[in-house]
Amino acid sequence: MNRVYNFSAGPSMLPLEVLEKAAAELVVYGESGMSVMEMSHRSPDYEAIINDAEAMLRKLMNIPDNYKVLFLQGGASTQFAAVPLNLIGRTGKADYVVSGQFSGKAYKEAQKMGYDVKCVATTKDDNFDHIPTVTKDMIRPDASYVHVCFNNTIYGTKYSYIPDTGDVPLVADMSSCIISEPVDVSKFGVIYAGAQKNMAPAGLTLVIVREDLLDYADPKMPTMLEWKTMAENGSMYNTPPCYTIYVAKLVYEWILSIGGLDEMKKRNEEKAAVLYDYLDSQDYYVAPVKKCSRSMMNVTFVTGDADLDKKFASEAAKAGLKNLKGHRSVGGMRASIYNAMPKAGVEKLVEFMKAFAEANPKN
Amino acid sequence: MNRVYNFSAGPSMLPLEVLEKAAAELVVYGESGMSVMEMSHRSPDYEAIINDAEAMLRKLMNIPDNYKVLFLQGGASTQFAAVPLNLIGRTGKADYVVSGQFSGKAYKEAQKMGYDVKCVATTKDDNFDHIPTVTKDMIRPDASYVHVCFNNTIYGTKYSYIPDTGDVPLVADMSSCIISEPVDVSKFGVIYAGAQKNMAPAGLTLVIVREDLLDYADPKMPTMLEWKTMAENGSMYNTPPCYTIYVAKLVYEWILSIGGLDEMKKRNEEKAAVLYDYLDSQDYYVAPVKKCSRSMMNVTFVTGDADLDKKFASEAAKAGLKNLKGHRSVGGMRASIYNAMPKAGVEKLVEFMKAFAEANPKN
Repeated sequence: MNRVYNFSAGPSMLPLEVLEKAAAELVVYGESGMSVMEMSHRSPDYEAIINDAEAMLRKLMNIPDNYKVLFLQGGASTQFAAVPLNLIGRTGKADYVVSGQFSGKAYKEAQKMGYDVKCVATTKDDNFDHIPTVTKDMIRPDASYVHVCFNNTIYGTKYSYIPDTGDVPLVADMSSCIISEPVDVSKFGVIYAGAQKNMAPAGLTLVIVREDLLDYADPKMPTMLEWKTMAENGSMYNTPPCYTIYVAKLVYEWILSIGGLDEMKKRNEEKAAVLYDYLDSQDYYVAPVKKCSRSMMNVTFVTGDADLDKKFASEAAKAGLKNLKGHRSVGGMRASIYNAMPKAGVEKLVEFMKAFAEANPKN
Repeated sequence: MNRVYNFSAGPSMLPLEVLEKAAAELVVYGESGMSVMEMSHRSPDYEAIINDAEAMLRKLMNIPDNYKVLFLQGGASTQFAAVPLNLIGRTGKADYVVSGQFSGKAYKEAQKMGYDVKCVATTKDDNFDHIPTVTKDMIRPDASYVHVCFNNTIYGTKYSYIPDTGDVPLVADMSSCIISEPVDVSKFGVIYAGAQKNMAPAGLTLVIVREDLLDYADPKMPTMLEWKTMAENGSMYNTPPCYTIYVAKLVYEWILSIGGLDEMKKRNEEKAAVLYDYLDSQDYYVAPVKKCSRSMMNVTFVTGDADLDKKFASEAAKAGLKNLKGHRSVGGMRASIYNAMPKAGVEKLVEFMKAFAEANPKN
């Protein structure tokens, strides 16, 4: 079985143990006589799966009892609309921090919908090479919420702190850092994340929302985007993405089995250090992100020569290191090293980087 | 490998060949070095999969070139909102035929959103035991569209005809009959369907929309629900439900391999005949649906005694015939016999029905 190291920004690697378990029980699950793909979402077999998934995630993330956990569809992009539709009724206005492309999209979506939204901080003029400093005095005290994107997949930046927004609920898109390390959920009003980076195949969106924030939905909004409706129906107002939730459950189980998010963080820090330590030790490659905002999940670097960058990605793929081409808005390379990327994959990448630098001297 | 016959209304059976193929290539797909679950949706390997899925579906359904095929998320329930958001801008009003619970939900969703919608026909007073007759003169000539649910999963009814709505586009929810037989797509403005009955695991929604209907979207609507945005981005405005689309592709491939929708219809007619012929030949069980509106996919029947009905579903499950309990709003039993249900499963059900009737005489 010839598996490569897949540095894709998402969808991305899943733990081999999870894939092997899913494959082994794909045709018949346990004593059910059928595939999880074929199960009625109302059946006891499936209810056990979704209930276990929620219980495991609550344990992993230490989610307080006054937060609802929702398993939804549509990706973080759907939440860009759902967030204002569910929350802006609090006060009629909302504040956004724009630290990259996806937080920019979230901001624009709320603008497009005709709401009073304000960009309170951005690092756009620095091509998003760091996370803005957000302080309470920058935020409108009567904002319904403040929206941030906690890890910026494209640029390779991450908040090194949780902004203090006072009484204004903090809403965070955590698509590319969810369950990569412990996070104090109680500091957030809402956390949401597309599953396809650290949790499951694409097609599942996680929303964790504080119960007191469920009462501000626009009465005319699409029912399927209403968090309260989904919370009241245990994520089963309609048929949920059952199989994808099942794979997420296997992933949660795997993280719990290795020691939970403390151990996950330790492994992720070690992996990131292998790459950043090498980047800091030489000058062939440049890491464009400021050290204070470095992401543990997405590591960007450039040679400074677009042709060399192209050659790098192409030769790396031939060496079994796939999807290292950076996003077109940054250029260069991006190594996405989510939970499921083994340390050996990062070590192999660094070996390749050294060999490539030696074989391709710059003029 | 102990597989049961699963008569669930959805999610429901998938062809065994499809499940076995998915299991065999789950950990590594072809020469890609990774699972389909892990593939970047922008990678050539994945683009081949989604392009093949669309090409196969177009071939299967003979979809005209002036229709777009969209692979979306959120289920038919999300389309209950998306339909008016995308279409009602044509004229500002829309007509609905209410032939069961889901068409009722679609109608209520449009009402809730504040639109001028009219129920032009319903069989509610007959507990939806048949499909209403819809004629052109019942429809407001300036309606943006007429919405129907083509097969009613809960009641076991189906349109035996395509309503002639003149110049008013016909929009059909085909969740529970899609790709079960040939249908003249050109008679519809929009066809949509949740995938979890005849196409794939839950988590994928198919929308087939005539191109000239893409220009009426509410400018303030959630971008993710805009058909035009999705069409312009080849269903990849954001990350699509990649793995579920891959399984749908395997299902399309399977139907093409057995002879396409003509053969599928033949098999489905044969299966349904086994059950309906038996029901018509005896008087222990009653089929509540009028013959003119019988569904080929969902067959409902009752003993007339709630305790016997309960005993039936429970004993059938023990005999490997699962999920035969009817929906609570109808009671009795429902056998969902979608594409993937083998004829042997229906024959075994009829044998069981005969034995049960004999062993449980009514007083």
